[in-house]
Amino acid sequence: MPPIAHRTAPWIAVDWGSSNLRAWALSAQDKVLARGGSERGMLTLTPVDYEEALLEVIGDWLPGTGSVDVLICGMAASRQGWREAAYLAVPTRLDDLIQGAVAPPLSDRRLRVRLLPGLCQTLPGRFDVMRGEETQLAGLVAREPDFSGLVCLPGTHAKWARLERGAVTRFTTFLTGELFGLLAGQSVLRHSIGEDDLSDPDCREAFVTAIHDIQSAPGCYPAWLFGLRAADLLDADLPAGEARKARLAARLSGLTIGLELAGLGDELDGPVTLIGNTALCDRYALVLDVLGHRSQRLNGEAAVLAGLALAHRALAL
Amino acid sequence: MPPIAHRTAPWIAVDWGSSNLRAWALSAQDKVLARGGSERGMLTLTPVDYEEALLEVIGDWLPGTGSVDVLICGMAASRQGWREAAYLAVPTRLDDLIQGAVAPPLSDRRLRVRLLPGLCQTLPGRFDVMRGEETQLAGLVAREPDFSGLVCLPGTHAKWARLERGAVTRFTTFLTGELFGLLAGQSVLRHSIGEDDLSDPDCREAFVTAIHDIQSAPGCYPAWLFGLRAADLLDADLPAGEARKARLAARLSGLTIGLELAGLGDELDGPVTLIGNTALCDRYALVLDVLGHRSQRLNGEAAVLAGLALAHRALAL
Repeated sequence: MPPIAHRTAPWIAVDWGSSNLRAWALSAQDKVLARGGSERGMLTLTPVDYEEALLEVIGDWLPGTGSVDVLICGMAASRQGWREAAYLAVPTRLDDLIQGAVAPPLSDRRLRVRLLPGLCQTLPGRFDVMRGEETQLAGLVAREPDFSGLVCLPGTHAKWARLERGAVTRFTTFLTGELFGLLAGQSVLRHSIGEDDLSDPDCREAFVTAIHDIQSAPGCYPAWLFGLRAADLLDADLPAGEARKARLAARLSGLTIGLELAGLGDELDGPVTLIGNTALCDRYALVLDVLGHRSQRLNGEAAVLAGLALAHRALAL
Repeated sequence: MPPIAHRTAPWIAVDWGSSNLRAWALSAQDKVLARGGSERGMLTLTPVDYEEALLEVIGDWLPGTGSVDVLICGMAASRQGWREAAYLAVPTRLDDLIQGAVAPPLSDRRLRVRLLPGLCQTLPGRFDVMRGEETQLAGLVAREPDFSGLVCLPGTHAKWARLERGAVTRFTTFLTGELFGLLAGQSVLRHSIGEDDLSDPDCREAFVTAIHDIQSAPGCYPAWLFGLRAADLLDADLPAGEARKARLAARLSGLTIGLELAGLGDELDGPVTLIGNTALCDRYALVLDVLGHRSQRLNGEAAVLAGLALAHRALAL
């Protein structure tokens, strides 16, 4: 093969979120040939900016003549994004997301862009939406077409989805990551919270104790929050300095993720498949283990690539 | 009496919090002769600033010769304040707060300042602190010396205190008000939340429904939070514009105060005495009523004045 084959991509996958985009040049066999990305997420862009922001990242991968498929998932397909791909209502199969894709207006004729839709749930009292995570779930289904079980995608807005034979039947989003961030960074607790390290035995113990505490009385969450501040002010059974802040951070994390787990209740009836980055999945796996539940992993990047590849194959049919 | 009697105060009461101070000139019979205040709260001051900040507000009430008692409660007596008055540990009587008072260094010899202490609870797992609210509780005891019962002081950091025959035996602080403020103002929900009005039947219904929802599953709090955003995005059974934002604000308020009530559990075993401002006490009274509990009121300003007067009388003994 001539050297140019290493640069020109048969097709391109993009995960375009609120705060950044990540792109991959892929072979016809869906192998990663190159990676790129930028901080030009949906929140920084208006519709006319998207094509240029995309070309900035993937321009080198485009052919001199002809065109390539570019499959995009995430917030770029939201109403505030490039062009809206309307939510598909659950229950919905995950091998068919391409049916809800839209094509944005383009100037560069080398691009054949498809924006994949998110999912919504319109059950009264259980309204919910996702954009981006459905493609990671599709990646799980790409690997195991008849997958059934409970899947958790930890993060700013953690998602728990019930899959039955390759379809999403229902899902619930918890504001967990955002809640933790606000409390650790913006509330009165910010004076008391540092960075935890769950490989440290004291942090780990504080984390595990918090998980049990919140399971026993989830309504006490706002009281235990203030209790972190009070314990710091009263020098209560705590080391000084950063060690103290680390331990209080571990407790805040255990209380907040633990509250999410308490909210799942009977939904948590078997092993959980965790999709996401390693550190956060480690943390959730520990919470699940403490509560007596098994878990397995799927790397978040591998999942989104497999989901976009599944959609790309469906496009070719 | 000469006119000067109307300006010179026999004694002065001050409630000095994090973000402001309020002062009252009082007669020998504890009647309010004049009121003052400023935005120079603890967070804006260093120890050397306090005397001048105080004189700015109460200077006109001081005598030409002689001196007056100035009793101060609140965050001015914290470690980061004027001078620290160490916490008194519960259980503690409320008619004796003056025993823990401290006198800060002063230049103006017309001032006889006493800073009242806060309360702390050092029960493992139940660490807690209060500064300012103990004086409002003392005001309740001033009116009813053998008071026993559960008292709630709603606010940024809502306090629930158990009183037995005029003493505080235990208390719990909930981060409720701060949590609501962060979520309504800083989270992704800020796009969906406005100002509610519980006299509007739709807002009231949303508020009451939220209280019941959170009682049934307090662990679902972070899921119901995201549900507010999803309901807005999906136009789910909601009016447009400000009416929508008001209804979602009412639901957020009901969920957040309701979570606090869920956390109280068996502690909530009889009528509740609410101390605070009218609007917030109205809201808590409604939550209590929805959950089948009676409540009575004590105005927050009346309570703090009665508490400072009780301490002043004890000082004279």
